[in-house]
Amino acid sequence: MSEEQELGITESKEHSPGEWYAEVVQKAGLADYAPMGGFIVTRPRGYAIWEQIQTHLDGWFKDTGVQNAYFPMFIPESYLEREKDIVEGFDPEVAWVTHGGNEELEERLAVRPTSESIIAPFLAQWTRSHRDLPLRINQWCSVVRWEATETKPFFRTKEFLWQEGHTAHRDEDDAWEETMTRLDQYEKLYEDVLAMPPLKGRKPEHDKFPGAHTTTTVETLMPDGKSVQAATSHYLGTSFAEAFDITYVDEDEEEETAHTTSWGLSWRAMGALIMTHSDDQGLVLPPTLAPKQVVVVPIWQEDTKDEVLEYAADVAAELDEAGVRVHFDDRDHRNPGFKYNDWELKGVPLRVEIGPNEVEDEELTLSHRPDGESITESRDGLETTVRDHLDEVFAKLYASAEETLEGEIREATSREEILGTIGQHGGYVKCGWCGDEDCEEPIKEAIAAEIVMVPLDRDEEPIHEECAICGENAEETAYFAKSY
Amino acid sequence: MSEEQELGITESKEHSPGEWYAEVVQKAGLADYAPMGGFIVTRPRGYAIWEQIQTHLDGWFKDTGVQNAYFPMFIPESYLEREKDIVEGFDPEVAWVTHGGNEELEERLAVRPTSESIIAPFLAQWTRSHRDLPLRINQWCSVVRWEATETKPFFRTKEFLWQEGHTAHRDEDDAWEETMTRLDQYEKLYEDVLAMPPLKGRKPEHDKFPGAHTTTTVETLMPDGKSVQAATSHYLGTSFAEAFDITYVDEDEEEETAHTTSWGLSWRAMGALIMTHSDDQGLVLPPTLAPKQVVVVPIWQEDTKDEVLEYAADVAAELDEAGVRVHFDDRDHRNPGFKYNDWELKGVPLRVEIGPNEVEDEELTLSHRPDGESITESRDGLETTVRDHLDEVFAKLYASAEETLEGEIREATSREEILGTIGQHGGYVKCGWCGDEDCEEPIKEAIAAEIVMVPLDRDEEPIHEECAICGENAEETAYFAKSY
Repeated sequence: MSEEQELGITESKEHSPGEWYAEVVQKAGLADYAPMGGFIVTRPRGYAIWEQIQTHLDGWFKDTGVQNAYFPMFIPESYLEREKDIVEGFDPEVAWVTHGGNEELEERLAVRPTSESIIAPFLAQWTRSHRDLPLRINQWCSVVRWEATETKPFFRTKEFLWQEGHTAHRDEDDAWEETMTRLDQYEKLYEDVLAMPPLKGRKPEHDKFPGAHTTTTVETLMPDGKSVQAATSHYLGTSFAEAFDITYVDEDEEEETAHTTSWGLSWRAMGALIMTHSDDQGLVLPPTLAPKQVVVVPIWQEDTKDEVLEYAADVAAELDEAGVRVHFDDRDHRNPGFKYNDWELKGVPLRVEIGPNEVEDEELTLSHRPDGESITESRDGLETTVRDHLDEVFAKLYASAEETLEGEIREATSREEILGTIGQHGGYVKCGWCGDEDCEEPIKEAIAAEIVMVPLDRDEEPIHEECAICGENAEETAYFAKSY
Repeated sequence: MSEEQELGITESKEHSPGEWYAEVVQKAGLADYAPMGGFIVTRPRGYAIWEQIQTHLDGWFKDTGVQNAYFPMFIPESYLEREKDIVEGFDPEVAWVTHGGNEELEERLAVRPTSESIIAPFLAQWTRSHRDLPLRINQWCSVVRWEATETKPFFRTKEFLWQEGHTAHRDEDDAWEETMTRLDQYEKLYEDVLAMPPLKGRKPEHDKFPGAHTTTTVETLMPDGKSVQAATSHYLGTSFAEAFDITYVDEDEEEETAHTTSWGLSWRAMGALIMTHSDDQGLVLPPTLAPKQVVVVPIWQEDTKDEVLEYAADVAAELDEAGVRVHFDDRDHRNPGFKYNDWELKGVPLRVEIGPNEVEDEELTLSHRPDGESITESRDGLETTVRDHLDEVFAKLYASAEETLEGEIREATSREEILGTIGQHGGYVKCGWCGDEDCEEPIKEAIAAEIVMVPLDRDEEPIHEECAICGENAEETAYFAKSY
């Protein structure tokens, strides 16, 4: 939308969260709807957030031995079928390319829904000796899954951006360490960059990635009480390696089967971020990934215009020089009130207001997004002052998200209690669970909540001795929640 | 290919350039062939080069007002048709998605061959006031063109990686300046990063991008005498803006039509890079974008092993600390000769050899890729010494490419001379040209050479008064060459 069309948010996060979310995404300039249902256009303000996420994660990946590559976006049907044969339950809804130019293709090509079946054969080709391992490949790309759902930008779209990592290792220990390394990096992304405390766990056996030995997950809680599967890291055991012949010769000249992993994070992370921190004034972003961290707004009358603009420009230039991502809003045709609303809507974490008083006293007035706290500080030590306030804004956002999470993990000892607690409060309910999928069914049917997670540690004692649903012996602790 | 399988290059750049190129690409680990004809897998060593190109270009784009975005990979057939209606000659061979899951789609979707037709409607939506301009959008993505040709990695593939920039401006001056800014940035990439001196010019009218007012081009000459269209920047005039309604209200409240541009560079730049510098020992890369700039190779006997390894590790650590991209090859099971060949094959620009003599004299022996010049230097001032040598390697590569270009631009005054000169020497032949496409035909038919370029400046006097082919008045100077 153009500058002339800007309007504040009209929907309420509390009362109409779906509409509010759609409005924030559009009015903050993050995304628009494409002409085809299920597709979106990621606008510069949205894409810049994704670039920040990429920069952080990609740096950590590379620091820990991952190499980027790029595989074809099409997968021959026979390759997908091969995966189907070995992996029970794999039945992807994909977009099919049937024609190239005016010719019908001999074999249909799937637009990749995920790339295991095209990457695994190459991992097999590149793995000969134990010296070739570990082999760690990642790609940043878009994938397509033809699921018929209402479009929700960054949450539910037929095409989405993500990274997918695929690795091969000598043995279970090494592959499991890899699985945990990536899970920990996802957790770090949420904690240190997105200002969102996540839960780490494992998917129950019946909800694993098809073919995986273990699917580990990072879950984050949304303000409406629903859980988001925020990233997953799979230990695949030897199932893919066996099917695709990923073997190596060890030091004793013995042929061994590799153990593999895969792990991914999509732009759903952006969706969760927007939903968690934003409010009825618009987008709220942590300074760690806000495309603009600071906006400098000059406030003047005709007689103070020159001195205010000069002082403000100087402040902006000094921050820019220091590497702070700063915007100087010197628009002549807009008043400060308009600018305040505009940058609040667009999620700039820190506003620096400069009027004649600030000039005279050699000060700055800083205002935090989202709570509006306003503080006057000396102009001296500008960079340090601003960085301290950016840290403070981050801490506020994190504390608020943490507060949402805390107290939203409740216990239950019966089916009725699970239903009642989630029905009333949302959030997570943990309870003893026998491990049988059948015991999830009645909860799913009644309130569409499911087991989003069990503890990572398989040996952890269940929280209660009995399964809350069937009363049999509990094998582990289940975390029930509604989810996106 | 795995470490165990490495072999030197067996083909000759001079005598079998096509086979040689394919061998370098595969054995240096840049790319493999995908199971579907026309597709490749870009391996980590190849993708790292593309990332370096991206980093340079993306930084320059952002410094000059460009914002990245992401548009859907699919374009509805009706949108493509709209472009076809307005742009004569637009008939893309595309991959068609006809089914989603098990359902046939109501409207076929093209996998994007280029994104004008999906981006332009959004430029129209986002452009209301003169204050919204200039609007500069870029995306890094893959595109698909269903052309039936032999696969040549990075040169001829059905799917390729590129960036496409799309901008809207108030008037011709502003749009033309944009067109030139991007062309200059492409030239800078070739000169300062890829170590390849390019020619800058304009495509003849009959070979413009369909719908463009002017197509400007950067051309680079390959060692086999063929020209590569290395990047293009189009001034589109108002044709796309009129068709897609990209209009704005100016200061006087008048509605005006915007002027637009588009510009792109693909991974063909990598192909040209590989072909230009590499040799019969394998890949040669300029230090500016080599994933590893320096390899440190220790040379020891059992009695000197400890001291040599310690000294060499120390050198590698110091370079790494200084931000040089260095690899310490301390493999125990490989001798120095194997390592030399290995890293020559893989295109590391500078080798640091360290044996007992170097340790004793506190020195290093440096070896330049590709000419093998070997120099012994003091260990003192390590970083500066290494950086100086990296600069020297770059200068050698540039000089060699420049030498290839110089003397390969010849003049001709008749059809026979054009045919004879290109037939004998390859390279560029410049001559007077009447401007009529018909005069290109006989050259094209006889030796498959064409007019790859005319001078940027439309007012430049033609080099000769008469068209070399028909003898009529020459309107401009044509550069004939065979091309990729």
